[in-house]
Amino acid sequence: MKKVVSVVEDILSANDRLAELNRSRLDRSGVFAINVMASPGAGKTSLIVRTVEALKTEFRIGAVNGDLATTIDADRIANTGIVTVQVNTGGACHLDAPMLQSALAHLPLDELDLLIVENVGNLVCPAGFKLGVHRNILIASVPEGDDKPYKYPVMYQDVDALVLNKIDVLAAFDFNIDYFRRGVEILNPNLAFFPLSCKTGEGLAAWFEWLRNEVRGYVSGRTGADR
Amino acid sequence: MKKVVSVVEDILSANDRLAELNRSRLDRSGVFAINVMASPGAGKTSLIVRTVEALKTEFRIGAVNGDLATTIDADRIANTGIVTVQVNTGGACHLDAPMLQSALAHLPLDELDLLIVENVGNLVCPAGFKLGVHRNILIASVPEGDDKPYKYPVMYQDVDALVLNKIDVLAAFDFNIDYFRRGVEILNPNLAFFPLSCKTGEGLAAWFEWLRNEVRGYVSGRTGADR
Repeated sequence: MKKVVSVVEDILSANDRLAELNRSRLDRSGVFAINVMASPGAGKTSLIVRTVEALKTEFRIGAVNGDLATTIDADRIANTGIVTVQVNTGGACHLDAPMLQSALAHLPLDELDLLIVENVGNLVCPAGFKLGVHRNILIASVPEGDDKPYKYPVMYQDVDALVLNKIDVLAAFDFNIDYFRRGVEILNPNLAFFPLSCKTGEGLAAWFEWLRNEVRGYVSGRTGADR
Repeated sequence: MKKVVSVVEDILSANDRLAELNRSRLDRSGVFAINVMASPGAGKTSLIVRTVEALKTEFRIGAVNGDLATTIDADRIANTGIVTVQVNTGGACHLDAPMLQSALAHLPLDELDLLIVENVGNLVCPAGFKLGVHRNILIASVPEGDDKPYKYPVMYQDVDALVLNKIDVLAAFDFNIDYFRRGVEILNPNLAFFPLSCKTGEGLAAWFEWLRNEVRGYVSGRTGADR
């Protein structure tokens, strides 16, 4: 009985151990990494493209794009001119640490400051698989509805920042932003929150500023540690 | 080596075998069942509520509602006055045949004509688990984007009917309906397609008519078989 339990624990933590290796690999090259998660169509690729365009003169940025099929998103990101590695998950509903490990092997990590990982569009499964990144980002979008924190709590409770995209269509949907915020605050009171529109650009500056400070804080923390 | 392969096959087909039992159970009571799948926020509950309101005088309808957490959706459906069973998946990203089997045990099947099953909001995992229903329905929505058939092909290729919800906001989104349709037709040329808006009611009549005919065809087919 005891043996079975210990075997199960080993299997569960295999992904986490590989995630720690990914983190060490990133830190060895001084690359700050974020994992971007969302429902299908919430705007992961749009936010990444906007972010790369805004920050690529300040930081050397790379991307990993996880998808079930096609290179539609990876192509959009690569069109910004940054190095992009596509991970075809072969039907799997999320990225995991072994997939990121494989992707990292194809990236020139010593020449990057920031790595943006786009997860598979899914509001359930990605929450269960650590990748080894430094920050986890969730994108919600207005058309999905204001009840999503209540209905998909696991995704909301462990992220560091929450983007609410498509605020340009707030008027067209019955979206109560206070009800949404209350649901988020119960689960995750300290997360950073960025209502914005990738389409109109409204609110993007605050997101860029947060990410800029996170990357700079990481770099200066490392410099301090090296002294 | 051969033994391992056969064990894996057994595990994979266990769900399908239970799905067949579910189908037999439904057929024994003459209940036509549909499985409604979609991304989070595409409008599963809204379409179900609209459908129940339109058809509840013609058919005796029951519902099964799968969710990770909360009874928000189940309560909305139950408010229409029909018998509703909530399945809390305990974090699982999809319904499976054993879950539906448990739910069926709580329903007065002999008193129903139509059972509507609402799956967990997810555009990946539900496709892999047959439930034993008679028709599978997928709801896409305009704000998700017109590239979803290309990026989530497995969900699109096995469904019997596709609803495109939220067409009232078509003008606010860069949604190319021809591109969307082409992606669908490559994967699944014979499916029934219903562009509509649960909010304004536009297009709902065609969906009601299709479902009405499916239920009636099932009932008359059974009557024929009994003769």
